[in-house]
Amino acid sequence: MSIDEACALVEREMPAKRWRHTLGVVESSVALAERFGADAEKARIAAILHDVAKFWPVEKQRQAILDDGDAAGLDTLLFDKELWHSHAGAFVARRDFGLDDAESLDAIRYHTSGRPGMTKLEKIVCLADYIEPGRDFPGVDALRKLSEKSLEEALVAGFDGTLRFLIEQGKRIYPLTVLTRNDLLTQIRPGGF
Amino acid sequence: MSIDEACALVEREMPAKRWRHTLGVVESSVALAERFGADAEKARIAAILHDVAKFWPVEKQRQAILDDGDAAGLDTLLFDKELWHSHAGAFVARRDFGLDDAESLDAIRYHTSGRPGMTKLEKIVCLADYIEPGRDFPGVDALRKLSEKSLEEALVAGFDGTLRFLIEQGKRIYPLTVLTRNDLLTQIRPGGF
Repeated sequence: MSIDEACALVEREMPAKRWRHTLGVVESSVALAERFGADAEKARIAAILHDVAKFWPVEKQRQAILDDGDAAGLDTLLFDKELWHSHAGAFVARRDFGLDDAESLDAIRYHTSGRPGMTKLEKIVCLADYIEPGRDFPGVDALRKLSEKSLEEALVAGFDGTLRFLIEQGKRIYPLTVLTRNDLLTQIRPGGF
Repeated sequence: MSIDEACALVEREMPAKRWRHTLGVVESSVALAERFGADAEKARIAAILHDVAKFWPVEKQRQAILDDGDAAGLDTLLFDKELWHSHAGAFVARRDFGLDDAESLDAIRYHTSGRPGMTKLEKIVCLADYIEPGRDFPGVDALRKLSEKSLEEALVAGFDGTLRFLIEQGKRIYPLTVLTRNDLLTQIRPGGF
């Protein structure tokens, strides 16, 4: 399947606004890949597909996760539905788009929660999702600035914002995101707390 | 050992300011136990002993945790030293003060991190540590107000403050505290996120 064919199919799965967001994530992912020395084509493909299941009915997302059977995906079924589309997306990327590159699939799978030991490609798509040009939330410019020098520092700042939001809203925090943030802090300052 | 004897021994282990804090935690623990129907004498004893190891040299705290061998205590050795004194304290409460009530020992052990499935006594000592009369931090009055109606809601607000502080400081978050907060939110709103 060509990139153009994949784009046409993904565009059909979401409202126009989300497709514009997706194109922003593609742009930012490619730029980050070039800046930090990752495979820009893998970044582009993962970014195109990262939200493919975002607007599916939640029951269809749940079924995709069950069909997929991935342990990390199944774990999210006990938590906020906002986490599901990443795992459903990785499943459909392989099944319906024929994507078989494990690194690209994991960049889709972990773009919302992160995970300890994220690859550079995973960091890039996750961070691009925070900073793409269409995003407009308090602190996004600081995040874009940080993303010029360090994937890890920018991602920690991104997750910090997510954690603050969940605390503010009185919502549960997905434990894997805290483990991811801890892991990134250890990468930034080995041995520090 | 009488309560007075225990107090005299604990007082020797810490600066005067921390002993005043301990007496505040005793006062608040007893009040919370009476308010929420827990054993006020167990609350008093756990509160007297909760910080007994707080001013020990960290190597002595580490050794107590190793001698104790409790899995939850050993886990904290991978994290911030601020967590250690609770587990070292539970160990010394049993070894040197002859405290053998499991519920009181766990109230000492988990007074900093919390844990999922906290008993009422554990909640009380942990919350009293946040709200004792000598505490003076932004939001403490709101916490005291919440503690008049719900141990769980007040504890979530207390942990929220701790998480915000760690985020602000760029420090790692102890995963058990996040699991504890999630568990308390589930107790407050079953099924909610």
